[in-house]
Amino acid sequence: MERGDRFAPRFDAAGLMPAVVQDAATGQVLMLAYMNAEAVRRTLATGEAHYFSRSRNALWRKGERSGHVQKLVAMRTDCDQDTVLLTVEQTGPGACHVGYRSCFYRRLAGDPQAPGLVTEGAPAYDPDRIYAKEAP
Amino acid sequence: MERGDRFAPRFDAAGLMPAVVQDAATGQVLMLAYMNAEAVRRTLATGEAHYFSRSRNALWRKGERSGHVQKLVAMRTDCDQDTVLLTVEQTGPGACHVGYRSCFYRRLAGDPQAPGLVTEGAPAYDPDRIYAKEAP
Repeated sequence: MERGDRFAPRFDAAGLMPAVVQDAATGQVLMLAYMNAEAVRRTLATGEAHYFSRSRNALWRKGERSGHVQKLVAMRTDCDQDTVLLTVEQTGPGACHVGYRSCFYRRLAGDPQAPGLVTEGAPAYDPDRIYAKEAP
Repeated sequence: MERGDRFAPRFDAAGLMPAVVQDAATGQVLMLAYMNAEAVRRTLATGEAHYFSRSRNALWRKGERSGHVQKLVAMRTDCDQDTVLLTVEQTGPGACHVGYRSCFYRRLAGDPQAPGLVTEGAPAYDPDRIYAKEAP
């Protein structure tokens, strides 16, 4: 599993695994989503990132409503094959449905026992003009 | 939750959330681990990454056996606060217990319906010389 050339993904009890999504151009981590076997297949077959939405309980082509599709550059798996890392070309202004380029737009700061959040940078677009909601 | 300055992490039913770990110097995604509330607290309080090992069911200071500790540069959370992103200074030759710098050392390739794995690059160290096993 850790050294071979066989892809044997270890999905969890719900049939999912986390997918880290990284911008191929900048290295920025854009989001974390979840994939099932069908999402992996469709992503590889179409070259566009597909995920499984846990909130909507449905397969989801990223950008299907916003147009901000993610073109797959490479997909990797980790040593124990329970996570994938997608390197993508993010089209449009951003990956996050809140309007930021990355979902990770807030940094923990302050008291380690009770940290707060500091928002970094500005939104890249107005999500209200794009869609009602494309939640992960 | 999505726009505020309050850190209100949404752990799963097991009290965990995924933590994406990124090399501050290169932007390389090193690994995905899991954190519980105590791991978050200890990471912020000590400045060294702590995770929760699902296989060992125990809190885990990364590098406690190998010495390859991860010094925290920044911790961020995502829009729905169910994932964190750690930017770290990775000390030592690598993060992966198999011997590679990153756990994501294999790329999916070949038939989209039945992909194989291609190993990229060479191990950064010999894990057998470091520890019996530091599994995630």
